[in-house]
Amino acid sequence: MTVAAGKPVETPKEAGSALDRLIALVADDLAAVNRTIVQRMDSPVELIPQLAGYIVASGGKRLRPVLTLAIARMCGHESPRPAGLAAAVEFIHTATLLHDDVVDESDLRRGQASANEVFGNKPSVLVGDFLFARAFQLMVEDGSLDVLRILSEASAVISEGEVLQLAAANDTTTTEATYLAVIESKTAALFGAACEVGAVVADVDPAIRNAARTYGMKLGMAFQLVDDVLDYSALQAKLGKAIGDDFREGKLTLPVVLAFARGDEEERSFWRRTIEDLDQRDGDLEHAIALLNRHGALAETIERARFYGRQAQAALEPCPAGPLRRALLDVVDFCVERDY
Amino acid sequence: MTVAAGKPVETPKEAGSALDRLIALVADDLAAVNRTIVQRMDSPVELIPQLAGYIVASGGKRLRPVLTLAIARMCGHESPRPAGLAAAVEFIHTATLLHDDVVDESDLRRGQASANEVFGNKPSVLVGDFLFARAFQLMVEDGSLDVLRILSEASAVISEGEVLQLAAANDTTTTEATYLAVIESKTAALFGAACEVGAVVADVDPAIRNAARTYGMKLGMAFQLVDDVLDYSALQAKLGKAIGDDFREGKLTLPVVLAFARGDEEERSFWRRTIEDLDQRDGDLEHAIALLNRHGALAETIERARFYGRQAQAALEPCPAGPLRRALLDVVDFCVERDY
Repeated sequence: MTVAAGKPVETPKEAGSALDRLIALVADDLAAVNRTIVQRMDSPVELIPQLAGYIVASGGKRLRPVLTLAIARMCGHESPRPAGLAAAVEFIHTATLLHDDVVDESDLRRGQASANEVFGNKPSVLVGDFLFARAFQLMVEDGSLDVLRILSEASAVISEGEVLQLAAANDTTTTEATYLAVIESKTAALFGAACEVGAVVADVDPAIRNAARTYGMKLGMAFQLVDDVLDYSALQAKLGKAIGDDFREGKLTLPVVLAFARGDEEERSFWRRTIEDLDQRDGDLEHAIALLNRHGALAETIERARFYGRQAQAALEPCPAGPLRRALLDVVDFCVERDY
Repeated sequence: MTVAAGKPVETPKEAGSALDRLIALVADDLAAVNRTIVQRMDSPVELIPQLAGYIVASGGKRLRPVLTLAIARMCGHESPRPAGLAAAVEFIHTATLLHDDVVDESDLRRGQASANEVFGNKPSVLVGDFLFARAFQLMVEDGSLDVLRILSEASAVISEGEVLQLAAANDTTTTEATYLAVIESKTAALFGAACEVGAVVADVDPAIRNAARTYGMKLGMAFQLVDDVLDYSALQAKLGKAIGDDFREGKLTLPVVLAFARGDEEERSFWRRTIEDLDQRDGDLEHAIALLNRHGALAETIERARFYGRQAQAALEPCPAGPLRRALLDVVDFCVERDY
């Protein structure tokens, strides 16, 4: 990926292909997940399927439910059961997106107007609650207390991470440790839970279950680190995608934490003005990117992502070899080296 | 209670005593619930126990968990098990309060500054999510899929009711049927679920379980109808409590639905200006109360509450007689005739 103006770190040979290959391997399951999502976001209260449909349709690649499906199949499970649980995972993710956008006051999500921008904050809060409740109804229908335990805990941890992120916002003294705690809670926990649920469905032994969870957690860490770099990426900007959201919101992501730590007093004043006081002017985002590059903060953040990515891949070692494990390994590289 | 200026409908002999008596009958259980609430709203992320503690402390009489406890005991259950589930019920209720206040942009809750007013909307959304997740963790620890089914369904229904209420806000053409659908979902569903959970824990036969659920649902209907009257109550105002919140937010509660239906064109213009356009001036609230009284809308809403209250009492008929059933019957009168 390109981390900053004309500074390529590594270009994957077939960008996107590893994820597409993984998706193809669980295509039938994923079709079932999508059917379940459409059925279960329905409600006689029309605004609910309207709003839920809006955010679900804008919904990216369904990475988390794909992980649930792929892990279950890799572990040899053959029933249609994982689809309902994968839909539950996606509902929890969607609920957190809706509430995040309200909290962040975002007007864009994946390049489209966010649901709160189109429908207002109030329905976004309430439909998030609805999807969260639906997720638990899907789990109850499945009937595994293990799965309910994993996903209720992940849900609590996600909200803890979001609150911690909120408390750290606009605080340039945020440490790398706090940043890592935030992303472990707000992002990695659901990746880990999605993978562990796949293993639980397949009824594997504890070592494999643990391997699946670790794979998901580490992949989630890598995924979020890259996301945070992409928010400052010149290539993103070139592709017409919005950059600088985190900067405008005063979010302390790792690139800024690193650049602040390495900056001189003048640079720290800049970060305090823009991130703490949110006093931002024309050219500030460009200057921020220049500072991040001066200190190698974007490249180093990608290095951390690669580190977590290698841990994710190592975790899969004890899992059954085959095309699914191969694709899960390659998806790590895809997530780390993606440029969107 | 007094429904409007100097117009007493009925004054209970010992206001509050039936609820106090019910609470006294489950005092030990309720102490355990309160301990569980304090323990389980804790988090290393300090803002969470701060905010959760604020709203839980301002938390009224814990009517819903008291119902869970009282029904379980009435049905002869003796273990400490209901306390954890009653705490889960209270967490769900608290989460919905937090999200409601964000949605309503309320600055007061039970006469105190609301959590969103003190801590901001963002943490209120996220801590609501946290408490909701914690509720499910408590249920998972208990281990009953029946309970998980009841409370996940109630949670979905509550959010449906809230969205329906939002869609009906500021719409003077809202029908009584829509209003009843809203309060059945947003309020009665959790009362019904709280009572049914008590019966499930006691492992009673389906007829008693159904009786408990019906009791809760009908009591919830009565409770909300009275709440909606109290928002226009002169006695509330005399006690120094805020009135007119629903009016200011343009909420279509039954008193307004009835008065609008019975009003002449001039009165309907008044309601359209104040409730639809939210163009409100000095003296409008007083005029609204005068119109509600002119059409007997407050007294008639209390009559509906009494009707549901009688249904609640009738539902308890097949349940084991004794001091708990007696107190549950009397609590219905207390809820209907309360003036706060």
